[in-house]
Amino acid sequence: MPATPDQVRAVIDQYVQAWKTGDKALLLSIFAEDCSWEDPVGTPAFVGHEGLEKFWAFAYPQDASRTLTPVPEQVIVCGNEGILRFTMQVRVPSENKGLNLLVTDHFVLNDAGRIKSARAFWDEGCVSCPDGMDMFVPDMSEAHV
Amino acid sequence: MPATPDQVRAVIDQYVQAWKTGDKALLLSIFAEDCSWEDPVGTPAFVGHEGLEKFWAFAYPQDASRTLTPVPEQVIVCGNEGILRFTMQVRVPSENKGLNLLVTDHFVLNDAGRIKSARAFWDEGCVSCPDGMDMFVPDMSEAHV
Repeated sequence: MPATPDQVRAVIDQYVQAWKTGDKALLLSIFAEDCSWEDPVGTPAFVGHEGLEKFWAFAYPQDASRTLTPVPEQVIVCGNEGILRFTMQVRVPSENKGLNLLVTDHFVLNDAGRIKSARAFWDEGCVSCPDGMDMFVPDMSEAHV
Repeated sequence: MPATPDQVRAVIDQYVQAWKTGDKALLLSIFAEDCSWEDPVGTPAFVGHEGLEKFWAFAYPQDASRTLTPVPEQVIVCGNEGILRFTMQVRVPSENKGLNLLVTDHFVLNDAGRIKSARAFWDEGCVSCPDGMDMFVPDMSEAHV
């Protein structure tokens, strides 16, 4: 049986929660072992939980100097698929730097209700600098190291 | 060679233009012969130009009593794929009825620069009634007849 719209909504809530609270175990728990994650779409996919851990190590702040706050704007659910539109607010308070990244995520759940495909759509038009701050520019080339 | 981001942007512009001006020939010209179109995602796909014509016959006003105005809000381009977020404003002036449908379209272009896959994400949360009007409710069951 395909995953239901309720399952899709619950998984998207957990996805946001995992990023908000820095809960890597929660993030991994909602992805299938054979998942793939493209971020942004068009770059090589991170594959499986090993790939997710790599992406997390790149994206998630490793110390308290940087904060990530996902701010959901819209969720659309169609069968076992979902769209999450959200802004990832990245802040580096000590340097007064920040970045707002407006992401349109597309998720497909497998029959077990876990994410088998996650694809993050964003381009340069989705990047903005918060008022009164300098732009924080992550080194995307490090994502795949 | 995969389609370029410039080709994706041009095709999305033409897509909006086709709906805005009622230009079915323009719409067909930007889709591959073997395209598929899901609207909304989760319902059976319309396949090929024959399928597109069927969808057009359902969706596009057949007389002047109803108007369709696509209002683009965001375009995201990732390689040969694109996202178009727009509101389709449907109006039936004689009955003071209307419908705003906030759609997140996902397009994939083939190497010839034509759309091979179009998938429209929307659910009940994407439907709203314009201020001061009664809700226009299309009969979606007619789409696949």
